[in-house]
Amino acid sequence: MKSKNIILLDHGSGGLETNKLIESIFLKRLSNPILERLEDSAQIDIYGKSLAFTTDSFVVNPIFFPGGDIGSLSIHGTINDLAMQGATPIALSLGIILEEGFSIGDLEKIASSIAQASKSVGCPIVTADTKVVEKGKADKIFINTSGIGILADGINLSSKNASPGDVIILSGFIGDHGAAILLSRNELPFDTKIKSDSAPLSELIKHLFDNLSAKERLQIKLLRDPTRGGLATVLNEISRASGVEIEIFEEKIPVRDEVKGVCELLGLDPLYLANEGKFVAVVGEEIASKVLSILKEHPLGKNSTQIGRVNKSRDGYQVILNTVIGGKRIVPMLSGEPLPRIC
Amino acid sequence: MKSKNIILLDHGSGGLETNKLIESIFLKRLSNPILERLEDSAQIDIYGKSLAFTTDSFVVNPIFFPGGDIGSLSIHGTINDLAMQGATPIALSLGIILEEGFSIGDLEKIASSIAQASKSVGCPIVTADTKVVEKGKADKIFINTSGIGILADGINLSSKNASPGDVIILSGFIGDHGAAILLSRNELPFDTKIKSDSAPLSELIKHLFDNLSAKERLQIKLLRDPTRGGLATVLNEISRASGVEIEIFEEKIPVRDEVKGVCELLGLDPLYLANEGKFVAVVGEEIASKVLSILKEHPLGKNSTQIGRVNKSRDGYQVILNTVIGGKRIVPMLSGEPLPRIC
Repeated sequence: MKSKNIILLDHGSGGLETNKLIESIFLKRLSNPILERLEDSAQIDIYGKSLAFTTDSFVVNPIFFPGGDIGSLSIHGTINDLAMQGATPIALSLGIILEEGFSIGDLEKIASSIAQASKSVGCPIVTADTKVVEKGKADKIFINTSGIGILADGINLSSKNASPGDVIILSGFIGDHGAAILLSRNELPFDTKIKSDSAPLSELIKHLFDNLSAKERLQIKLLRDPTRGGLATVLNEISRASGVEIEIFEEKIPVRDEVKGVCELLGLDPLYLANEGKFVAVVGEEIASKVLSILKEHPLGKNSTQIGRVNKSRDGYQVILNTVIGGKRIVPMLSGEPLPRIC
Repeated sequence: MKSKNIILLDHGSGGLETNKLIESIFLKRLSNPILERLEDSAQIDIYGKSLAFTTDSFVVNPIFFPGGDIGSLSIHGTINDLAMQGATPIALSLGIILEEGFSIGDLEKIASSIAQASKSVGCPIVTADTKVVEKGKADKIFINTSGIGILADGINLSSKNASPGDVIILSGFIGDHGAAILLSRNELPFDTKIKSDSAPLSELIKHLFDNLSAKERLQIKLLRDPTRGGLATVLNEISRASGVEIEIFEEKIPVRDEVKGVCELLGLDPLYLANEGKFVAVVGEEIASKVLSILKEHPLGKNSTQIGRVNKSRDGYQVILNTVIGGKRIVPMLSGEPLPRIC
């Protein structure tokens, strides 16, 4: 029996239990119109212009993994939260909690990785803080990054914007980050080349908006990156926020064979695996093919594909998967936590 | 013998070892003009105006203490970092790391405390993130808060601005926070009523600037809050940044009798104890008495007093204490970590 009075790993899943915890503990008390929007980043109006502001803590285990480390991940994660609002990142903060006894050599590697990631997106770290706790009171290193971005005029992205007839586009293969972390943690008895997809999406999003007309930009309804909780959880959040049904097609969703193999072996579903360099776009049908061809021009979007559509809500707000064998099933939000500390 | 290759608690002291770690690991790699200023908050120019941006992680132990808890402390700390740049806080972020098994009742108390502190300064929490790690991989709860503030025109505060002839003002009693944490941790065999001074300084700083003329405002050279590392460390940082000698007078520095008693018993120096609701102002001599009388009008500044002056550098950059018994001694930056996890 699970206790209701203590924090469980499930509360950190990014899925159902996280949402419930946030609502019952924090939203109830901290309630304000900006926080309640629950987007990937907040919108602040200042001097008649709009800024995006976001925060994320990273507790990934292990701290080094194929395709990245906690340093690069912490920059990409916050850059992507800004990018999902269509914001151009301008400044990052860095808050580091270290465990006594942590290797300074490893800290140097992580700092180099942070520096490289920050440079690659042209967004400096302008403020930082370091704390140390006793051995056994933290696990090596935890990193918080917060970020400020500038919101362009003429863009209006919100999880509430999906409407029937819209098209769902996914920017590439899913599950790579989750599978890479899992494999690097468990030392399973087989060798794969799965790497985390950890990458900054800001350039790809900029490339998209730069190549659309003002009118077309308004047909980009929302962008979301399916991190903790995976594609299934993000689609459920969109369905709930917009009050629509979302229908997706299993055969259209790109999953690498290696990731499929790992999922089959371990009884996991790639729809729930975390991604750190992918996004879902909900766009008006009339611009779908143009959006796809623009995304495919960029290395991070070359495997973009249309995976489904938005329908009028029938049986409540839900996500329906058309399976490869011709059936239909409801895909709920992630419940429980199969893979703690994925980011 | 201390190892050079691992992180020690000393690296989190806020004193000498923290400064060395930041320089050797982070500044070297993340180098940019904003970060290098090393002020309490960074200054970002946007739309022709200036914003302040700051971050702080809180790992205080215990999480509840006389005068506050980790929740209120995490809001006050970041609000104060903005206030020390003369910025009006407009938005806060909240990043929480929870240990599996942490009490939801305690989390509710902390969330209420965060809400109350945020409301009391009129600065909303606009974006948040929650992570959970396995039992034994963190100590109950760690909180990161980042904050954005608006910098007023006609204010120019920097640790580099102290010049010979300036006066050092302290806003009240020192050592309360450090002593309160220490006592709540050790269950010493005596009863005191020492409470943490944790408080938001933004209203007091606003009160100060509102009551000065434009010309007088420019005579406020810098504001710093002596948190980790205490008054001694902040004065050393100012001395080093401005290339001046700082001379203070022991008899002028307000220390409560209870705090003195604890320090004598435990062999601690109140100059190195942390404060969470006090600041040091370096001001031009001609406005010193006006600044003092303005500060004394506000409850958080009623014990403000002049504690010393800025001299031309003689024997390098240093802080000189004139003791009550008539001697002089050099007060170095904090070295080592007498009280880990004070904030």
